[in-house]
Amino acid sequence: MIRVLGVDPGSRFTGWGIVEMDKNRLRHVAHGVISTKSGDPLPARLSVIHKGLLGVVAEFSPQEAGVEQIFSAKNTLSALKLGHARGVALLALEESSVPITEYTALQVKSAVVGYGKAAKEQVQEMVKRLLSLPEVPPEDGADALAVAICHGRTRSTNAAILASRAGVKMEFRR
Amino acid sequence: MIRVLGVDPGSRFTGWGIVEMDKNRLRHVAHGVISTKSGDPLPARLSVIHKGLLGVVAEFSPQEAGVEQIFSAKNTLSALKLGHARGVALLALEESSVPITEYTALQVKSAVVGYGKAAKEQVQEMVKRLLSLPEVPPEDGADALAVAICHGRTRSTNAAILASRAGVKMEFRR
Repeated sequence: MIRVLGVDPGSRFTGWGIVEMDKNRLRHVAHGVISTKSGDPLPARLSVIHKGLLGVVAEFSPQEAGVEQIFSAKNTLSALKLGHARGVALLALEESSVPITEYTALQVKSAVVGYGKAAKEQVQEMVKRLLSLPEVPPEDGADALAVAICHGRTRSTNAAILASRAGVKMEFRR
Repeated sequence: MIRVLGVDPGSRFTGWGIVEMDKNRLRHVAHGVISTKSGDPLPARLSVIHKGLLGVVAEFSPQEAGVEQIFSAKNTLSALKLGHARGVALLALEESSVPITEYTALQVKSAVVGYGKAAKEQVQEMVKRLLSLPEVPPEDGADALAVAICHGRTRSTNAAILASRAGVKMEFRR
């Protein structure tokens, strides 16, 4: 069993989600959103994101983390803003010694929905179903849970590949 | 007398410079560059920048800081990278309770050279002259010192304006 943190950083809202993966079974542990006030100075907002994630790690002790990798943005200004938030988020995980794997949106969608070009709503609906949630979580929380699911599934697939290469049989339940 | 830190953040090299300003007299205290290894994982590199700046603040105890404000970049990818570095740099100052003022490149050039469209080399040469340095510092260090000079000069100009509004006379030496 492994406990995985997924993070969807943003300068206004940073989503986080914790799932447990036992063999191929997923279990929802918690999710939430760290909000910053748009009127506050940038350094103070970055501190809120950083402290917020340190708090999530301290409370839930995830063993590994997945973070969405960004290659593009609306424009350079929004890329800069997002970069600031993402930088302090990665720093919080690094300081907490939580190993980080980055995933592209394509990888997240493929792992969760099975289709790399799935719409945002399809991903959210699938997150709800896979984790047996009563309703679709708020956008940033759902995105973070999707990254956590992606990491959980990808790492168990990778483990299976490595095991099969080494001649070890692993049992998987679907 | 005030001790000012200037920071020029970058994902590969983060320049820093410390100057003291006594009325309008500038004095060089120290400057340097925090380097990260391009082959290292991003979170580890961000930690190097963050720890490096915390170290500079601990060693030199600047009372205020100037950081260059960025509005544009070659492309969104380089904006993202720069944003990561800048985010953890701002965080380090925020955590150290050093008040931050952001300056555009135009403001820095105007304050240092007296001309907002000055070439990089003119700025570096002026930094050398203003701080009576034996030679031009390495690029990132010189840029950081330029931001520190900009902050020192801007804050004393602002103080003079406020003082004159309040009917107080201030003595300035050029």
